[in-house]
Amino acid sequence: MELYVHKIKSAENYIKTFIRWVFLASITGFIGGVIGTLFHVSVEHATEFRAENNWIILFLPIGGVVIAVLYKLFKMSDSTGTNQIISSIRSDQKVPFVLAPLIFISTFITHLFGGSAGREGAALQLGGSIGSFVGSFFHLDEKDMHLITLCGMSSVFAALFGTPLTATLFAMEVISIGVIYYSSLVPCLVSSLMAYGVSLYFGVVPVRFYLSYIPDLTLKTIIMTVVLAALCALLSIVFIVSMKKTEHLMESKLKNIYVRGFVGGLIIVIMTVLLKTGDYNGAGMNIIEKAIGGNARPEAFILKIIFTAVTIAAGFKGGEIVPTFFIGATFGCLAGSLLGLNPGFSAAIGLVALFCGVVNAPIASIVLSIELFGVEGLLIFAIACSVSYMLSGYYGLYSSQKIVYSKLKAEFININAK
Amino acid sequence: MELYVHKIKSAENYIKTFIRWVFLASITGFIGGVIGTLFHVSVEHATEFRAENNWIILFLPIGGVVIAVLYKLFKMSDSTGTNQIISSIRSDQKVPFVLAPLIFISTFITHLFGGSAGREGAALQLGGSIGSFVGSFFHLDEKDMHLITLCGMSSVFAALFGTPLTATLFAMEVISIGVIYYSSLVPCLVSSLMAYGVSLYFGVVPVRFYLSYIPDLTLKTIIMTVVLAALCALLSIVFIVSMKKTEHLMESKLKNIYVRGFVGGLIIVIMTVLLKTGDYNGAGMNIIEKAIGGNARPEAFILKIIFTAVTIAAGFKGGEIVPTFFIGATFGCLAGSLLGLNPGFSAAIGLVALFCGVVNAPIASIVLSIELFGVEGLLIFAIACSVSYMLSGYYGLYSSQKIVYSKLKAEFININAK
Repeated sequence: MELYVHKIKSAENYIKTFIRWVFLASITGFIGGVIGTLFHVSVEHATEFRAENNWIILFLPIGGVVIAVLYKLFKMSDSTGTNQIISSIRSDQKVPFVLAPLIFISTFITHLFGGSAGREGAALQLGGSIGSFVGSFFHLDEKDMHLITLCGMSSVFAALFGTPLTATLFAMEVISIGVIYYSSLVPCLVSSLMAYGVSLYFGVVPVRFYLSYIPDLTLKTIIMTVVLAALCALLSIVFIVSMKKTEHLMESKLKNIYVRGFVGGLIIVIMTVLLKTGDYNGAGMNIIEKAIGGNARPEAFILKIIFTAVTIAAGFKGGEIVPTFFIGATFGCLAGSLLGLNPGFSAAIGLVALFCGVVNAPIASIVLSIELFGVEGLLIFAIACSVSYMLSGYYGLYSSQKIVYSKLKAEFININAK
Repeated sequence: MELYVHKIKSAENYIKTFIRWVFLASITGFIGGVIGTLFHVSVEHATEFRAENNWIILFLPIGGVVIAVLYKLFKMSDSTGTNQIISSIRSDQKVPFVLAPLIFISTFITHLFGGSAGREGAALQLGGSIGSFVGSFFHLDEKDMHLITLCGMSSVFAALFGTPLTATLFAMEVISIGVIYYSSLVPCLVSSLMAYGVSLYFGVVPVRFYLSYIPDLTLKTIIMTVVLAALCALLSIVFIVSMKKTEHLMESKLKNIYVRGFVGGLIIVIMTVLLKTGDYNGAGMNIIEKAIGGNARPEAFILKIIFTAVTIAAGFKGGEIVPTFFIGATFGCLAGSLLGLNPGFSAAIGLVALFCGVVNAPIASIVLSIELFGVEGLLIFAIACSVSYMLSGYYGLYSSQKIVYSKLKAEFININAK
C-alpha cells in the first residue's frame, strides 16, 4: 500500500514538474520570441537602410564611441558578454538584466553603421537575460535558474534563425562539451518552439538554404569531405586566434575604450572604401546565400576574418556566428571546387564544419545542417562535423566554455576553451 | 621558435590520432559489417523458414534448453549480456570474445523457433566483442579499449538496421546518460559507415518506413503528441517492470536453467497455439510495418509485452529493441487514433517515443526518427522524444546504464537505471 502511495506521489512530482516547466518555458519563449522578433526586424531594417544609404558607414567610428559610452554608463565595460551567460549556467552568478537592452542597442548600432558582426551573441545575451529575469520573477532556486537561462538562450536563438531544434541542442551542448543536462530538454524545446512560433506569426522568415546538388555518398566524396572539414578545422583555429590576437593588440595599443571604438570603426571605414564594396559589412547573409549558390570570391573568407576581428576587438557587438557562416561558406565554396566537389554543396559543408569547429558542438552542428539544408546530405554533414570537431583542438569562440573530455582519448580533462 | 615546434608536434598528434582511429575503426567496422550482415541474413532466413514451416515452433522448448546448455558449457550462464558490454565501457573489465558466437547462435535459435525477441542485444554484444577483440589484437590501452568497444557496438547496429548515424549516437549516448565521450565520434561514425557500406554491398535492405501522412505543427497536434508521448513514457515503465517481474518470477520458481528454458518455451508455444497467430513470435517487422501503415490490433501491444517478457526471462536471446518498436508502433497506432491523430503517423511516434523511454537516449531517438521516417516530422518527433524521456523516470532496459543527471533538475545524481 505504502509502495503505491509512494509511486503515485512520484508520478505526481513528474507531472507537476512537467507542467511547471511547460508554463515557465512558454513564458520565457514568448518573451524571447517577441524580443527576438523585434531585434530581428530592427537589424533587418538597419541592414536595409545601410544598403540604400551606404554613406552611413562613415559614422561607424562614432558608433564605436557611442557603444563604449553606453557600456561605461551602465558599468558593464568589463562584461564578457556571451561568456558571462555561459559561466552563469555553471555558477550561482546572476545575469544582469541591463545586458539585454545594452546588447540590443549596440548590435543595432553595429549593423546600422556597417560593423562586421553577427546576431547570435546578441541572441544568447538577450535570451540569457530574459530567462534569468523570468526566473527571478518566479523566485526559482539556483538549479532551476540554470535551466531557465538555457531556455531564454535557446528561445531567442530559435526566433532569430528559425531553427528551434538546433537552438535547443546548441544551448544544451555548448556550455560544457561532454556534459548534457537533459533536464533542460523539455524546457528548452518548449521555449524554442514558442519563440519560433511567435517569430513566424510576425512574419520572420526562417533561415533556409536550397542546395541544388547533393552528391552521393561515394568514397571519393567522403575523402574530399574529410579533407575539406580538416581544412575548416584549421581555419577555425586561424579565425579564433586572429580574433584574440587582434583583441589583445587593440587593447594594448589603444587602452582608452572610446579611442579604441573610434579607431576600430575608422579602420573598417578605410578598408570598406579601399575595397569599394559593402560585402564585408554587417552580417552578409546575401554573400552566404551566393556562396551556397556556388559563387564566392576567393579572398572573401580572409577579408571577412579581418573585418570581423577588427569590429569585435573595437568593442562593436553582435557575435561571431553569422561571420562564421560567411567565412565557412565562402571558404568551402573555394576549397571545395579546388577539391573537385560541387561548390554550392561545399559552401554548405564549410558553413556547418566551421561552425562546429568554433563552437565545439557537433550534435547541434549536425542538426543545424538538417534545419538549414534538409536531410539528404545528412551523413556527409555528419562526417564533416565529426572531423572538424576532432581536429579543431581546444580553441573556441567562448573562452568560458568547458571542454570536459579530451577530443582524442576517453579521458576527463575539464579545460576551458582556448 | 620553440612555440612553433610545439604547435607542429601538437598538430602531428591530432593527425596521427585521426589516421590511427580511421584505420582501427575501419577494420572494426568492416568485421562488424561482415558479421552483422551474416547475422542479419541468418535471422532473416530463420524467420522465413519459420513463416513457411510454422510447426517448428513446437521445438521452441528444446531451443530454450539448448541455449541454456550452450551458456553453461562456456561458463557464461551468469553473463548479463548487453549490460556486461555497457559496464565494460566504464571499467577495465574485458568483454569475453566467446559472447559473440554464443549470442549469434542463441539469437538464431530464438528466431528460428519463434521466441519473441529483437536483434539489437545481439548487435551490441557481437559488436562489443568484435571491438574488444580488435583492440586486444592491436594492444590498445584501457581508454582506447572503451572507444573501440563503442566502435564495434555501433558498427553491428548500423549493419543490422541501416541507420549509421543513430548507431553512432546511440553507442555514444546510452552508456552514461548525460555524459558523452566526443572522442568516440569519429571512430564510431567511421565504423558505422564502414559496416553500413558492407551491409549495403551484400544487399541488406536498410530499415525504412514510408509515412503517408505527416501532420502540420498545429497546437492541437502538439498537445496530442505530448499526450501520446506521455502515455508511451508510462508504457515504457510498464514494459520494463513486466520484463523484470517476469524474470524474477521465473528465476525464483524455476531455479534450474534448463527447466526454465523449456517451460518458458512451452508457455510461448501454448500462447501461440491458443491465439492461432504467429504475429507475436520472432521480431515481428511485418506487424510494425502494418502499424505504420495505420493498422494494428488493439491488444497487440499487450500480447507482445507478455511474449517478450516470457521469452527473455526464459533465457532466449536477441534483445528488446525490435519488440520495443513493435509495442510502441502498435500502441501508438491505437492510442493515436483515439486521440484523433493519424494512426500511421502515431505508430511512428509511438515507436520512437517508446524507444526513447526504454533506452533514455533522446538524441539518438530523434536521429532514429530521421533515419527511419525522414525529416518532415522532425519537430513533432523531437517533442515526443523529449516528453517520453522526461516522464519515463529512471527505468531502463539496461540496468548497467548510468543516468548521470536528474531528469527533473540540473543536478548530478549518477544512478543506475532501474
